[in-house]
Amino acid sequence: MEKSVDAIVKNKVSEYVGTGATGDTIGLVIANVDEQILSQLHLDKKYHSLGILGARTGAGPHILAADTAVKATNTEVIDIEMPRDTKGGGGHGSLIIFGGDDVSDVRQAVQVALDTTKQTFGDVYNTTAGHLELQYTARASQACHKAFGAPEGKAYGLISGSPAAIGVIMADTAVKAANVNVLSVASPNHGTSFSNEVITHISGDSGAVRQSVIAAREIGKILLKNLSNEEPTNEFPSYI
Amino acid sequence: MEKSVDAIVKNKVSEYVGTGATGDTIGLVIANVDEQILSQLHLDKKYHSLGILGARTGAGPHILAADTAVKATNTEVIDIEMPRDTKGGGGHGSLIIFGGDDVSDVRQAVQVALDTTKQTFGDVYNTTAGHLELQYTARASQACHKAFGAPEGKAYGLISGSPAAIGVIMADTAVKAANVNVLSVASPNHGTSFSNEVITHISGDSGAVRQSVIAAREIGKILLKNLSNEEPTNEFPSYI
Amino acid sequence: MEKSVDAIVKNKVSEYVGTGATGDTIGLVIANVDEQILSQLHLDKKYHSLGILGARTGAGPHILAADTAVKATNTEVIDIEMPRDTKGGGGHGSLIIFGGDDVSDVRQAVQVALDTTKQTFGDVYNTTAGHLELQYTARASQACHKAFGAPEGKAYGLISGSPAAIGVIMADTAVKAANVNVLSVASPNHGTSFSNEVITHISGDSGAVRQSVIAAREIGKILLKNLSNEEPTNEFPSYI
Repeated sequence: MEKSVDAIVKNKVSEYVGTGATGDTIGLVIANVDEQILSQLHLDKKYHSLGILGARTGAGPHILAADTAVKATNTEVIDIEMPRDTKGGGGHGSLIIFGGDDVSDVRQAVQVALDTTKQTFGDVYNTTAGHLELQYTARASQACHKAFGAPEGKAYGLISGSPAAIGVIMADTAVKAANVNVLSVASPNHGTSFSNEVITHISGDSGAVRQSVIAAREIGKILLKNLSNEEPTNEFPSYI
Repeated sequence: MEKSVDAIVKNKVSEYVGTGATGDTIGLVIANVDEQILSQLHLDKKYHSLGILGARTGAGPHILAADTAVKATNTEVIDIEMPRDTKGGGGHGSLIIFGGDDVSDVRQAVQVALDTTKQTFGDVYNTTAGHLELQYTARASQACHKAFGAPEGKAYGLISGSPAAIGVIMADTAVKAANVNVLSVASPNHGTSFSNEVITHISGDSGAVRQSVIAAREIGKILLKNLSNEEPTNEFPSYI
Repeated sequence: MEKSVDAIVKNKVSEYVGTGATGDTIGLVIANVDEQILSQLHLDKKYHSLGILGARTGAGPHILAADTAVKATNTEVIDIEMPRDTKGGGGHGSLIIFGGDDVSDVRQAVQVALDTTKQTFGDVYNTTAGHLELQYTARASQACHKAFGAPEGKAYGLISGSPAAIGVIMADTAVKAANVNVLSVASPNHGTSFSNEVITHISGDSGAVRQSVIAAREIGKILLKNLSNEEPTNEFPSYI
């Protein structure tokens, strides 16, 4: 009964698109944004139709999902912000805004991104002590470029460990495992929103990037298990 | 027995004023602050009597309460800082310092502010997924001006949603609902302490500001309920 | 049985040194760091053997432990970063990197630091509302100098209270209790990573610094108890 009431409520406002796989992820649209708000938001370009993807937990999963969404639709990502969140965890939440010429385009982008979070949460591993996140794409697009400087059209990998100390070892292990290019290494005071993570961004040949990411994942799981005395677990199947 | 011991302890130090309605809010005073500390704190003016209002959860409620307090007393607010806190939630805590020429003045300001938090938490709505906060005053005073650039003597409204995505829709809805002036829109990377909120500050005619705030509250409640599958609830009666 | 499996796993990777007393503290080493990673980390000097100390909860305890470690070994601290963490609490986590010419040196530094956390968590007091942290050393070394500007070879004290309001009173009380020099006062928006703390750094004569720190601790405990209606408790014996 409560559920059917919810179902009715969920149809009540045109701005609501849906929710994502996990992480308190919500997708929303504005068909024609107010001019005052448009000028006060921090957007790369001033589109009038906006798609909005937000979460309490997760930035990488949402940025990779947005990357898939811009490939699949006539939109682009015009804002990516990373609050220090995860509801007491060590990482980020996210606010991502798509721009498009038509509300149907941005709605489609938001829907694709919401659907893709099932995949992009596949290599997020949690224990009570911390977390690991791995992402991989054979062809980075505009969202990964905007967020992390990933060269478009090339393979890109994201390697993150929390607490940050674990992320340092994952970075070193990844780069020793295959011949990849390090785009940057973010740490609590450099390139994160004071999150307790070291996040390494790599690009290069797709096989090498994937091999690097997998090597980082394996040592990360051992170290996080050593710290936690628990097996790190993912909520969705690994995709890498 | 434990309680009576607490009661005795609570009278033991002259610096202690009391606690607020919720949010781990504490009120304190220093009659004559040490010169070294005065020079190291980040204050607009160097008063020797300081009133201190702090909380783990809540910045808007405390700033609006401080606004009421400066109207009612011979003090002014000389520091407002917003830690990224809320004990695992998506928002801010607060540190607010009042300056006055006499300890009785700053003590009164702190007491008024503590008492006012019962009102200013009235339109804070929580679920396990996020929160909404709405504030409204018919006449903004010095605290709202210092914190948010609100024109003194004019109506002012604060509209916040967490996760930040919900705050974007609330901003747009508010401004379409009535003819108001947008002072600014804060977001995770712009004007917040990396909180997971979009916070819109508006001013204008009092009826219009109130109407805007209410419209934002109503859509915010629907969206947060959609995300949470729970009814957003406030701990104290709504005052707007 | 689970434990014996863990024990085996904990021997599996050469990078793992051990865990600390509390706070999800982990110690790690890299014998010969990859050049790309070395150039992307934010280090004062480019050593090839790195020791890494990280935690979800605690920065002061780890920096003071690192200070002891550099005194005891042929290493120096080349990076100190403070994420906004503590798993929903009001303070910081930490990432500290030691540099040395040999992996045995940095491994020893990490081990000494891990062992010392039992002491340096001794004056960390918690309640559900907030925390207090006190640190004291008769002779500050390179880590305290790097992190907080403590003059090397002189006594140094750290005084922190959360919520930040309590830390203001602790600062004032400390400096009135003895003749000490205030190095700086950090607050949510100045010198912290948006933590909900006021942190005062003092130096001077060792007796005076110790007396100041103790006076701050005593008033902090009363105020935090007043706020929490609980006795603030430390997990390890007080050392100050």
